[in-house]
Amino acid sequence: MTKPTSNENAVRAHLAKWLEASRAMDIDALRNCYVPDLVSYDCHSAFQFRSFDAYGKHLAMCFSHISGPMTLELHELSIVADDNVAFCHATMRCGCIGTNGAEHWSWLRSTICMKTIDGEWLVAHDHCSAPFDPMTSQAMLDAGPEELKKVA
Amino acid sequence: MTKPTSNENAVRAHLAKWLEASRAMDIDALRNCYVPDLVSYDCHSAFQFRSFDAYGKHLAMCFSHISGPMTLELHELSIVADDNVAFCHATMRCGCIGTNGAEHWSWLRSTICMKTIDGEWLVAHDHCSAPFDPMTSQAMLDAGPEELKKVA
Repeated sequence: MTKPTSNENAVRAHLAKWLEASRAMDIDALRNCYVPDLVSYDCHSAFQFRSFDAYGKHLAMCFSHISGPMTLELHELSIVADDNVAFCHATMRCGCIGTNGAEHWSWLRSTICMKTIDGEWLVAHDHCSAPFDPMTSQAMLDAGPEELKKVA
Repeated sequence: MTKPTSNENAVRAHLAKWLEASRAMDIDALRNCYVPDLVSYDCHSAFQFRSFDAYGKHLAMCFSHISGPMTLELHELSIVADDNVAFCHATMRCGCIGTNGAEHWSWLRSTICMKTIDGEWLVAHDHCSAPFDPMTSQAMLDAGPEELKKVA
């Protein structure tokens, strides 16, 4: 096991801040995690969001269908960090209680890319998705690593 | 317009090599573009591939359904590179002629993350996807940037 570098530790701390803001569904706190000219590829509804303002509106729409807090867990997390650029990927378990009281969750693939601005780590790009079945074009929302599905 | 750094130019050169190998559907050439312990999230069929060996088998299956070469275009490309870590994202137009002679193509979101090993840039992680429609869970394979759809 290699000891994490100070860059990796700083990136991990920023991820923890992002997770906390996401679980709390706090758009102002999330805004502080991202660069303003973020490019975000989310798992549903739109091809891309090319600013935090556009992404924030999408999040507000999503959060309006949820009774918080969200379940958001990162498994199989990998962080690769240099002094000013980093990328992370993880198997994400994402769940919520809908406004109708029913619980939903699914496994998603998450990539989070960061850079520093004035020495502060910020998310510059993220990409969250589910694969689709090429026969039916249906999103495979119950896919996920077999080992993790057993313990979820 | 900021002048590209030498890191960005090196990453761009590796992307060009990756594009050429992908279009040629050349799995040996692709193997040289990736780290062996790649983690790949592809747009269809499986949640993830946790080595180039696993990903290469998936590619071989995909290529068996295609009469090459593939159409693979990167639009709206962004590269952020430090000395040893980089990430890129792009709107990808991906097309092929199926073994039945019919042409298919779609817009996909592509994230490509690289690191250096012994001074050589290699892809350590990639993520390619389509968003899904939350009402139907169908992959939105005809989504894409409106401006680009006009010229495609």
